[in-house]
Amino acid sequence: MIIEEKQVSTERIFQGRVVGLRVDQARIGDGSIRGREVVEHPGGVSVVCLTEHNEVLMVRQFRYAPMEILLELPAGKLEPGEDPFEAMRREQKEETGTTAEAYVDLGVLYPTPAYDTEKIYLWACRVTGFGEQKLDDGELLEVERVPLEQLEAMVLENRIHDAKTQIGILKAAALVRAGAL
Amino acid sequence: MIIEEKQVSTERIFQGRVVGLRVDQARIGDGSIRGREVVEHPGGVSVVCLTEHNEVLMVRQFRYAPMEILLELPAGKLEPGEDPFEAMRREQKEETGTTAEAYVDLGVLYPTPAYDTEKIYLWACRVTGFGEQKLDDGELLEVERVPLEQLEAMVLENRIHDAKTQIGILKAAALVRAGAL
Repeated sequence: MIIEEKQVSTERIFQGRVVGLRVDQARIGDGSIRGREVVEHPGGVSVVCLTEHNEVLMVRQFRYAPMEILLELPAGKLEPGEDPFEAMRREQKEETGTTAEAYVDLGVLYPTPAYDTEKIYLWACRVTGFGEQKLDDGELLEVERVPLEQLEAMVLENRIHDAKTQIGILKAAALVRAGAL
Repeated sequence: MIIEEKQVSTERIFQGRVVGLRVDQARIGDGSIRGREVVEHPGGVSVVCLTEHNEVLMVRQFRYAPMEILLELPAGKLEPGEDPFEAMRREQKEETGTTAEAYVDLGVLYPTPAYDTEKIYLWACRVTGFGEQKLDDGELLEVERVPLEQLEAMVLENRIHDAKTQIGILKAAALVRAGAL
């Protein structure tokens, strides 16, 4: 039986604009005390936006941590207290200019639960409204339409690296094949 | 055209056993200077271990950051300078007691590239040798065999949350369907 760990003490190291960091002492299942480094993140949202021709709206942007340009699903960070569904619709509108009438819940992913509290909530939709991007100040990204079938092949061939994008594309492709999206 | 960002300065905030944290000032594409919070991680490895009956060796363990028990693929952190393939074989042996003769490369995933350098390298294999677990001191986990087909359904039904596990299972299921694993 797996036994839950209990917080014994906590030391706050950092609170930034994106992440927080704390180091806890925790009592683990064998009774001993261990250090636990925890990156705190408010959570994120992402969405697979499909056109009527089964193209997906993708964003290409520079990511500073890996120092690479990545092709990803539109996504964003939750504001404090923000509802994930509303946050996703806001990010969709800001990054792609589009809206939709109905959404399919693609579930949640924990990017790296060994040390990070972040959870990313995923949806898929059929785009019904097209408008203009409204990017945040300093946000630089390009929107591209890529066929879902091509993106699924790119994921399986290791040509897309972002985790939420791999998961969103594979789940959306399975739903489209099943006639459920 | 997306323009790469350049490091202007860096401030080291923390170096722990698992993660490091720094805050950089970066020149971004529009010429302005922005703060960039970067979580540094040495990278990870994970493996989909299939038995001859298409069961997957899964590990159930408590994760302190989300405070939940999760069902995941066997995985581990790279030691400094360690080769990812060798690290994966070490973790497979330690956590499941198994070995294999051949591996299929399932690619790499970036769990959360907006602020984290971590990359997780994934493989799949058919298990050929069965032995005993050799867990690290304080590592408490249970190994379970779960049919791949059932795991794929669990991922699609949002009953598995860990990102590398969702990706590994969906990719392995596609390969088995294609007769390539």
